[in-house]
Amino acid sequence: MSQFQVRTDLALETREKFEEDNVEIKGVRVEEEYRRKNEIKITTMVIETENGAKAMGKPKGTYITLEASNMDCQDEDYHREISVELARLIKRLLPKKKQPLSVLVAGLGNREVTPDALGPRVVDNIMITRHVLKEFGKYAFGEEVNAVSGIVPGVMAQTGMESQEIVRGAIEETKPDVMIAIDALAARSTRRLSRTIQITDTGINPGSGVGNHRHGLSEETLGIPVIAIGVPTVVDAATIVSDTMQTLIQAMEENSHLQTLSTGLSALNDMEKHELVRELLSPQLNTMFVTPKDIDESIKRLSYTLSEGLNIAFA
Amino acid sequence: MSQFQVRTDLALETREKFEEDNVEIKGVRVEEEYRRKNEIKITTMVIETENGAKAMGKPKGTYITLEASNMDCQDEDYHREISVELARLIKRLLPKKKQPLSVLVAGLGNREVTPDALGPRVVDNIMITRHVLKEFGKYAFGEEVNAVSGIVPGVMAQTGMESQEIVRGAIEETKPDVMIAIDALAARSTRRLSRTIQITDTGINPGSGVGNHRHGLSEETLGIPVIAIGVPTVVDAATIVSDTMQTLIQAMEENSHLQTLSTGLSALNDMEKHELVRELLSPQLNTMFVTPKDIDESIKRLSYTLSEGLNIAFA
Amino acid sequence: MSQFQVRTDLALETREKFEEDNVEIKGVRVEEEYRRKNEIKITTMVIETENGAKAMGKPKGTYITLEASNMDCQDEDYHREISVELARLIKRLLPKKKQPLSVLVAGLGNREVTPDALGPRVVDNIMITRHVLKEFGKYAFGEEVNAVSGIVPGVMAQTGMESQEIVRGAIEETKPDVMIAIDALAARSTRRLSRTIQITDTGINPGSGVGNHRHGLSEETLGIPVIAIGVPTVVDAATIVSDTMQTLIQAMEENSHLQTLSTGLSALNDMEKHELVRELLSPQLNTMFVTPKDIDESIKRLSYTLSEGLNIAFA
Amino acid sequence: MSQFQVRTDLALETREKFEEDNVEIKGVRVEEEYRRKNEIKITTMVIETENGAKAMGKPKGTYITLEASNMDCQDEDYHREISVELARLIKRLLPKKKQPLSVLVAGLGNREVTPDALGPRVVDNIMITRHVLKEFGKYAFGEEVNAVSGIVPGVMAQTGMESQEIVRGAIEETKPDVMIAIDALAARSTRRLSRTIQITDTGINPGSGVGNHRHGLSEETLGIPVIAIGVPTVVDAATIVSDTMQTLIQAMEENSHLQTLSTGLSALNDMEKHELVRELLSPQLNTMFVTPKDIDESIKRLSYTLSEGLNIAFA
Repeated sequence: MSQFQVRTDLALETREKFEEDNVEIKGVRVEEEYRRKNEIKITTMVIETENGAKAMGKPKGTYITLEASNMDCQDEDYHREISVELARLIKRLLPKKKQPLSVLVAGLGNREVTPDALGPRVVDNIMITRHVLKEFGKYAFGEEVNAVSGIVPGVMAQTGMESQEIVRGAIEETKPDVMIAIDALAARSTRRLSRTIQITDTGINPGSGVGNHRHGLSEETLGIPVIAIGVPTVVDAATIVSDTMQTLIQAMEENSHLQTLSTGLSALNDMEKHELVRELLSPQLNTMFVTPKDIDESIKRLSYTLSEGLNIAFA
Repeated sequence: MSQFQVRTDLALETREKFEEDNVEIKGVRVEEEYRRKNEIKITTMVIETENGAKAMGKPKGTYITLEASNMDCQDEDYHREISVELARLIKRLLPKKKQPLSVLVAGLGNREVTPDALGPRVVDNIMITRHVLKEFGKYAFGEEVNAVSGIVPGVMAQTGMESQEIVRGAIEETKPDVMIAIDALAARSTRRLSRTIQITDTGINPGSGVGNHRHGLSEETLGIPVIAIGVPTVVDAATIVSDTMQTLIQAMEENSHLQTLSTGLSALNDMEKHELVRELLSPQLNTMFVTPKDIDESIKRLSYTLSEGLNIAFA
Repeated sequence: MSQFQVRTDLALETREKFEEDNVEIKGVRVEEEYRRKNEIKITTMVIETENGAKAMGKPKGTYITLEASNMDCQDEDYHREISVELARLIKRLLPKKKQPLSVLVAGLGNREVTPDALGPRVVDNIMITRHVLKEFGKYAFGEEVNAVSGIVPGVMAQTGMESQEIVRGAIEETKPDVMIAIDALAARSTRRLSRTIQITDTGINPGSGVGNHRHGLSEETLGIPVIAIGVPTVVDAATIVSDTMQTLIQAMEENSHLQTLSTGLSALNDMEKHELVRELLSPQLNTMFVTPKDIDESIKRLSYTLSEGLNIAFA
Repeated sequence: MSQFQVRTDLALETREKFEEDNVEIKGVRVEEEYRRKNEIKITTMVIETENGAKAMGKPKGTYITLEASNMDCQDEDYHREISVELARLIKRLLPKKKQPLSVLVAGLGNREVTPDALGPRVVDNIMITRHVLKEFGKYAFGEEVNAVSGIVPGVMAQTGMESQEIVRGAIEETKPDVMIAIDALAARSTRRLSRTIQITDTGINPGSGVGNHRHGLSEETLGIPVIAIGVPTVVDAATIVSDTMQTLIQAMEENSHLQTLSTGLSALNDMEKHELVRELLSPQLNTMFVTPKDIDESIKRLSYTLSEGLNIAFA
């Protein structure tokens, strides 16, 4: 029942669905850490086998999720703590081989659509150093620093090109060691919006992100390691409606007041229930998303928190 | 059953609900025009009595709705036709007494949240003349023209003030003859988004608009006639979910495959069905909206079409 | 010779001109502080008498100038120190009578012209509290805090109204205790751009600011104390050209290589020299300004530094 | 004397300088057209030989200049006429070989610095078609249309990369037939600002544009024809000051009232005069530009006029 009409870019939510359904997934290793003092929960999920990847519907690799229920509040000092934690997690996934690194940060998404503007606005605030190092040499900053460059490829309706085409072109020209891709994600639950950061070494996969990138951005397609950092800022409209309807059906089955209903629905198998829900879903919902009214404030805060995390990681 | 958890800023949709329920509303007069050549449908609804106002849940006055299914397409010439029609409708509602007029255009809403940015972006593109007339006299433009000023009051989270406070202050200082308030609206149906313009001489009422203005902007509160021009750009998340669930319940009642269900649900009266739906609706949905993924393009186009309409009306 | 074709919004520069000309100004008291550890120089100038005001061409009151040659660099920690210092200076000028205060922060200038966008962008980043206090009472934040509201009145070409009209209207409606006006200034010397903050209790005076506000914003015109905080971001084009030409004339007079010239120019008195320079100045220069190519980065940094200063002062 | 401290991106102004100095340039052919009805002057300059190129300091090729003194006014219909004329001139320079074309429009410059935002804002308003044609085939629009894509590469301080690197990458990936580069230019005379459009098949050359592109964008460096369209929006601060000083020296030489001066200055040769001026120019001026206070309105208007011209040319 789980994958029907439902979409999430969070590996954490995919796994939760399995847990709800009491299904065990082989080939996926999970570790949890909890920092009591700042109420940050870190879940590291490693998809180790092809079977695990198939079950999860996500490529093999490491998915780290940082959850902080207070992430969506105004406290500046608290955001600094999240940035420090984020920097630590990014470094965990960075290629170890050489120092200093040449890093390209790609801010994916559409700057003109508020919940999709996270990527572009993170790039607005990162410390760009590559051009200075290229002009003045590696001691331009007094010490050896990483060469950071940034790109905002825009979306197809604005450029007529895939993000992948623009990013791959820039990589071919400038040969960075690693790419960091920042993107706004779709979650399944509204509770996660603006409160969760996912960091993964698997890059961006086709169909993920608020705007559904057609082609992926990964080591496979770009030739260099790609670390993707995403924050869920929307829920697909079809997902939210479908989920609530399934809850309604379930409530009817369980509600003692509706016993005769329960009998009727029991006559339907899961597939038939899906069918029923699907028929009622307006096809227009597939082109729509759900987002909080104060998403502008969340995006402003999150873009600082993420850019600060990157600045700490690469300083 | 109709008003439960459901919100629309369009008088047209409120009336449709009555029609669905086969309820006749007294004190509301409706006229329809259809321009075949450009496929524009114009519905003029006049709420004439207090009873009509109570039934509709909207103040007495005139509500003109311009519907054009192609409004959300790229054709520039077509948009020009809509602008011309809009200008004609605005003039119909303008106070007749004097010429030229002094007009304040208020762009309501939050510039930083895409579907709520309509008002601010319309003001960005209107021809402002008041300051020129004030400095160079009434023949500054070779002929007598209307004095147009514009204001973008922002939203409470940005200013700490009600739109009403800022707008009323500006009106007290500059004494315009009439105010035009531009606002993004919430519709009930996703089909209406970006395809409908509502023009009304009743102003903006408390709780309307994407961002739920607390206090109204009307002749009653501001002391001058207020013409509100709105385009629906979002559906409340609670509305879309509640509506789909009601459709699900209805489908269950009607579906022959689900006859036993039908018996069960029939045992519930309308109030109990509402209760069931309400229990399932997450309270977070009330702070969320549904909007199309390409809302940035709609807002860009609509803001030109509306500002062009205003520029034609006041040139 | 000094006032000819020359404009500065900095009291400090007006005084320097007198010093250059070895003119003593009565009724103006000056104190200087220097913080060695962070290289910040603070000059407090009090214009005490009407004679002093007349000589200076500026109203009676206190003008505090904070100079930091590193203000235009990227170091975030350093900017924090400037913010702390700024908060201290703002508090020095705040009305002492009551606590907590209700403060309106007005971001003057044109958001669409980079060097004039300082004011609007500071307001984007201040902590707005008035609406929360109004809704949830004075302990909404756990302790008594100041009620901060913000307004971005825009410029006449955008609104058709004077900043003064919009700001005065908002003050009448919301009755703040004090207004803080943020504005981009014109300096005389390019060396000062983005490196100096002027804080004064005399408000904004007619003709000051990058965009030349027609009407002043001061306690006299608004009825409440007005503290103006400004940073020079442009030099008037006429000023820079006129100044350089005067330097050329002076160089000719002094240069031994040009002795015969010296004789010639000596034949001209100061007034004739002014006349000569004025004739050569294109009248178009009066509608133009000079600004650094990287003004976008300065404005970004300065708007954070100033908003941070305000947030510290009013938290 | 002409090249000293003086910079212009307009071939027209370079040529004027020669005319002032009564120098004839070989290898440069010039034709002028004047459209009386809409007061548009078109000058076509062809640099035909290497000698001509050397004398002009610009590469061989065609430079078309469209001058319209009313270009900086609000009349929308007039701007439409300029767009139509511009489309005609672009088509003149387009490669003739094949139809339909695949065109990449590059909006150069810094979106965050108003006079440099022309290129990015033109790309915001062009009709992008490439992605639709790629997905739905060449009859997606009912007729064969050109495939238009757009890119806004940003500036080095934002990306750490040269515009050339980003643009070349995109060209390698998407293989367009021709590139159109839009850029804000530096003029020598303030009179030309926002009133002149230069169209050339020589592309963008190192050191041109408001932000001084380090590396050029031309057929030589990119491998495809590059048509550059530019509008002057700034004058270099050093240029304006140097020019005015030279005028002062000239005035002194000519002014009968200053006869003794004349004698003195005559003693100086041109080189010594240059030296004198150079000594007085502050080195900071080289990082500064002069621009009109209402540059935001010019950029808004011009970006529509240019994007409209491109949309007509490629529709």
